[in-house]
Amino acid sequence: MSNALKVIVLGTGRMGAGIITLVREKRGLELAGVYARRPRPEPIDVGDAIGLGERIGLEVSNDLQALLTRAAPSVAIQATCSRVAEAMDEIRLLLRHGVNVVSIAEEMIYPACSSPRLAEEIHALAIANDASVLGTGINPGFVLDFLIVTLTGVCQRVESITAKRVNDLSPYGATVLKSQGVGLTADAFASGVADGSVVGHVGFPESIAMMADAIGWDIDRVEETREPIVSGVQRETSTITVAPGRVAGCLHTAIAYRGDTPVITLIHPQQVRPELEGVTTGDYIDIRGDPGVKLSGSPEIPGGVATAALAVNVIPHVVNAEAGLRTMAELPVPASFCGDVRRLIAERSRGCA
Amino acid sequence: MSNALKVIVLGTGRMGAGIITLVREKRGLELAGVYARRPRPEPIDVGDAIGLGERIGLEVSNDLQALLTRAAPSVAIQATCSRVAEAMDEIRLLLRHGVNVVSIAEEMIYPACSSPRLAEEIHALAIANDASVLGTGINPGFVLDFLIVTLTGVCQRVESITAKRVNDLSPYGATVLKSQGVGLTADAFASGVADGSVVGHVGFPESIAMMADAIGWDIDRVEETREPIVSGVQRETSTITVAPGRVAGCLHTAIAYRGDTPVITLIHPQQVRPELEGVTTGDYIDIRGDPGVKLSGSPEIPGGVATAALAVNVIPHVVNAEAGLRTMAELPVPASFCGDVRRLIAERSRGCA
Repeated sequence: MSNALKVIVLGTGRMGAGIITLVREKRGLELAGVYARRPRPEPIDVGDAIGLGERIGLEVSNDLQALLTRAAPSVAIQATCSRVAEAMDEIRLLLRHGVNVVSIAEEMIYPACSSPRLAEEIHALAIANDASVLGTGINPGFVLDFLIVTLTGVCQRVESITAKRVNDLSPYGATVLKSQGVGLTADAFASGVADGSVVGHVGFPESIAMMADAIGWDIDRVEETREPIVSGVQRETSTITVAPGRVAGCLHTAIAYRGDTPVITLIHPQQVRPELEGVTTGDYIDIRGDPGVKLSGSPEIPGGVATAALAVNVIPHVVNAEAGLRTMAELPVPASFCGDVRRLIAERSRGCA
Repeated sequence: MSNALKVIVLGTGRMGAGIITLVREKRGLELAGVYARRPRPEPIDVGDAIGLGERIGLEVSNDLQALLTRAAPSVAIQATCSRVAEAMDEIRLLLRHGVNVVSIAEEMIYPACSSPRLAEEIHALAIANDASVLGTGINPGFVLDFLIVTLTGVCQRVESITAKRVNDLSPYGATVLKSQGVGLTADAFASGVADGSVVGHVGFPESIAMMADAIGWDIDRVEETREPIVSGVQRETSTITVAPGRVAGCLHTAIAYRGDTPVITLIHPQQVRPELEGVTTGDYIDIRGDPGVKLSGSPEIPGGVATAALAVNVIPHVVNAEAGLRTMAELPVPASFCGDVRRLIAERSRGCA
């Protein structure tokens, strides 16, 4: 069997750290480099940068170009941002080096949705460099889109889709909590929604586009609402204390219409310590059709560990894929493969080459 | 857009009838012929044969060779049997005519499991004739295998899988009920299991093989047990009346071991009128790992309508697939596409041609 598949990871935040750890554990993969956007005053070992408790003999690089030249990876996993526009510079550089890209940037699930021109550029650049690009993640990317598409496979007809993901923000850090308006007054939350500082969930339009495309629905409009989840009790996490009357999170909802008919409704209340007010977390999918399909699970599939898993589990599919910009719905399902990942890499990788 | 994709259906039983009806409804597909194994004394219109309430101007054929020559289909859906050995003659003929095959024969989900030599023959013949072959169905094929593989995609590690499908046999006819031992005494059920006339579920080894292959587990042995579900009450369907003390169905279980460790447990109690003894039907998946994933839905995804849906929804993937014998885990997920199916057929169908 050939040498291990070289993987680099972009990002040393919470998600990057989880992905780095998993890449190192998987047989057949080699962590060939780690890149971080933010320079540090002194060189730092990856193990120290991600709090591994031990050094791994690999320094975090702030020079992606140099890292690519030195490491010559087959695959890069991007965990540096949420938006396509923010992801582009890195993706361009990776593709110009012929590197396959897995991105967990939320908008990269379906980049044509927010950024049709950039999506076209990615597709063309990927084809020109014989590489493929895939966005993945637990949400968007799995629970509220890909899994639903998969479940429609048993339906002769689909009338409408309603899905809800109730999760717990407690493990998340200050950046995420701020983007959800946690700790604000209800008034400040409303102002934050108006000025864009309270974002809520990133990815509803992308999830809707993935499903609508798979089902063949033309969506006329998508309405998103962001409501404050005002806490009735004090809620504490390691990051924040939310006083009673303050915002514990954001109830973000998106409804997609065909004409005046709502066909996709996605409901995503995210908050810290939901259990303190008797809220049970979970994932809930309700497809109306013939047959209808209802599936649910509680608690919710945890976002962090699952997104890291997906980012690594899709590697063989991305390597095997036809060159270009791909979506989860175009590739075989990602499985948790415990053997040597190289066994999954098709010899005819890239089809006709 | 090119002419409609020509589809023929093999089988005019309950499943064949559902598939024929759905093929006729889908835009972009043309029902180009219907084949039945059993000759009838007089020619019969497909509509009459499947109880459609109207004639459709297409006669059921008993001569597959002649039908293939006349209809020149792109795809055939096989709904004539359960076993690979029983499916082979038709598959050989279809492939020699370059026809892509979707089979709902249970063993065809993973034919190498029961019939490794025949699976090799199918694969070679498919490649030689530039066609592809796929087995699908709700179970095996989706709930207790493919959906579980999909869900492991969010896991960094999988320790074990337990899944249960509790369903209602009431809609099924005499052949199915007999194969489940419905109406027998417990003693006769035991004899039936011993002599092979009580079969229970067909497809556990195939489901286990699909999952083990996707996860990379070498399975050392599979233990199957078939226990009678003895009714405490009288249970009536349109087909049968089960007296108290008689068998209402079969509790079929399969456990796959690695060494002495059970890693996959599949539990499938099938019976008529389960609600009469307070049994709720449903699908239950429990993946232990990091993270664990628990999903369930009640009632169960109904087998008949869902299998017909899958058989038709996979058509574009089978046409687009690389030539050869394929499994559900190798192709993109099947979605319920409501548009013109031809839009999903890649222009580069068959890759390099």
